[in-house]
Amino acid sequence: VSHKTAIVIGAGAFGTCIASVLSHNFEKVILKVRSVDVYQGICEGENKIYLPGIKLASNIVGAHTWEELDKIVEKENGKVELIVSGLPTGAIKSYFSENKERFDKYLDEGAAFCSLSKGIDPETLELPDDYFYHYFPDHKESFTFLSGPSFAKEVMEKQITLVSLAGQGREELITVSKMLSTSYFKAFISYDVKGVLLGGALKNILAIAGGVIEGLGYNHNTRAGMITRGITEMLRFGHVMNSRPETFYGLAGMGDLILTTTGSLSRNKSFGLELAKGRKPQEIIDSQRTVVEGYKTTKAAYLLARKYSIRSTIFDAIYQVLYEGADPKAKIEELMATPPRFEHD
Amino acid sequence: VSHKTAIVIGAGAFGTCIASVLSHNFEKVILKVRSVDVYQGICEGENKIYLPGIKLASNIVGAHTWEELDKIVEKENGKVELIVSGLPTGAIKSYFSENKERFDKYLDEGAAFCSLSKGIDPETLELPDDYFYHYFPDHKESFTFLSGPSFAKEVMEKQITLVSLAGQGREELITVSKMLSTSYFKAFISYDVKGVLLGGALKNILAIAGGVIEGLGYNHNTRAGMITRGITEMLRFGHVMNSRPETFYGLAGMGDLILTTTGSLSRNKSFGLELAKGRKPQEIIDSQRTVVEGYKTTKAAYLLARKYSIRSTIFDAIYQVLYEGADPKAKIEELMATPPRFEHD
Repeated sequence: VSHKTAIVIGAGAFGTCIASVLSHNFEKVILKVRSVDVYQGICEGENKIYLPGIKLASNIVGAHTWEELDKIVEKENGKVELIVSGLPTGAIKSYFSENKERFDKYLDEGAAFCSLSKGIDPETLELPDDYFYHYFPDHKESFTFLSGPSFAKEVMEKQITLVSLAGQGREELITVSKMLSTSYFKAFISYDVKGVLLGGALKNILAIAGGVIEGLGYNHNTRAGMITRGITEMLRFGHVMNSRPETFYGLAGMGDLILTTTGSLSRNKSFGLELAKGRKPQEIIDSQRTVVEGYKTTKAAYLLARKYSIRSTIFDAIYQVLYEGADPKAKIEELMATPPRFEHD
Repeated sequence: VSHKTAIVIGAGAFGTCIASVLSHNFEKVILKVRSVDVYQGICEGENKIYLPGIKLASNIVGAHTWEELDKIVEKENGKVELIVSGLPTGAIKSYFSENKERFDKYLDEGAAFCSLSKGIDPETLELPDDYFYHYFPDHKESFTFLSGPSFAKEVMEKQITLVSLAGQGREELITVSKMLSTSYFKAFISYDVKGVLLGGALKNILAIAGGVIEGLGYNHNTRAGMITRGITEMLRFGHVMNSRPETFYGLAGMGDLILTTTGSLSRNKSFGLELAKGRKPQEIIDSQRTVVEGYKTTKAAYLLARKYSIRSTIFDAIYQVLYEGADPKAKIEELMATPPRFEHD
């Protein structure tokens, strides 16, 4: 244990598992939780809502209010060395503008920042980095962005997990990567912030498609083929944002996509499986507590493709299935009915 | 049906399924089979050894000898428009030097050629294209090379299947792609012959690693992470052979790797699973009729890495497990125990 205090904002499954990783290297990890039922569980040493049945390390504590959090930090005389944000992308804007002063102070005092948010805002087409850089323009180098193949439950089980960590500052990347480093968790660093965030967002769309394909009764060949063609399209989105192609076939792109399409645990895949049964998107979403990021991202990608004239046949087809009631089987047949063409052009 | 006759050399599972694809577009598809038991099955309309229980199309016929094959071609007055080679890489050299005259004649008469062979010769470090270009230097443009995510059984079931087809001649690529085109099968074309062949070969090594990881009890996170880091190494092999990075995250690279690591049907993965149980490589191989390409390819990749000074930590670790009795769990821990580093460098 070489660090004092880390704060994790938001105790969803992923925020909680990152808190567990940090608990190896920090004296105290404070989970800042808004909802009362999650908070109560954390106080009893378990995230009963999102990761039921898994005991948390004893140096992970919950805080429901800022006052409570400040008291814990004070009592421990614990300098806040790392802030982790596990908020959904849609919540970043309001949360960090409302609490800007507090975070300015942490950052001024040298705290590093690690965002776990994935997704594209379907209204503004902005990504998490756009918000953070906008609200904290003097601390851009303090921000890092984590993404990669990491089911929270498996991280809790100490399964070996490799992720990407992107940011603008070399020192900060190395610092946060070390803070996250354990015998089972490893964050590879990268300067390609947009690529890592875009990979983490767009792969959710293909995960839905993977679920639909499986649900329709197609098997391994079809799934592998469609995913691969989908990644080729992902690169075109990256191209207009100046990200590096390698990032998309790295951990935050291909790696996460492999996980998400082949692991039965993924929410986006389950969503696709339900769609294939003929259920309506909104109906499925209403019946779940957790967010299906890929659904909103599909719309954002559709709008991005229009805005930047990106050729995106597969992503468009998924959009039409999710938002315009198109028949997935007919869409697949349409995609197949094209003359010989080059794989990469 | 717009073509006369296709010849498929070798009736393994994959050769047989490509014959089935071709049966939609050719009047006659002749499977040239060496082993008597496979041949007898084909004559009865079924590849009883490699694809038992699946009925072959009626225009697929077997030929045990060249005389028999010539008789069928003559009788049908069927021009041979396509030759498919489904031989294991190790068999190409002797087969096509022994029968060179015959194939020269087909090629002179305008036949196209499609090779299904994957793998690197562990003695000479040559790939299938090296052999074909060596024996048929005047017909280089006639040769195409197919690779991609395609379990034979699923192709037989008419599951949608997308593959890469590489070659030097634009017209020939389009021609063969059309010959292979059905409502469920599609070959995307590419000029990157070495990339497609290298992807198809090296992915077998990572498939073994995927099996070992699964067999050791690691789960989705670990598998996705290791595969992704493995592809990064594949690119370095491609680099010394001037292939395009895109090829490795295309159908013949990433696509086939997704299939092979996540589908339970893959031979290389099963091999890895058995290894994880503590069985010796040679013992597993001796107990199977089919070839585990990845085993030999691991040695070839190891030698290639030495020859060209390729940084190949993961591939080397797999080599040490397969050929030097190294403990896979210890190797994985070793790979994890490195300081923060850039994901792509």
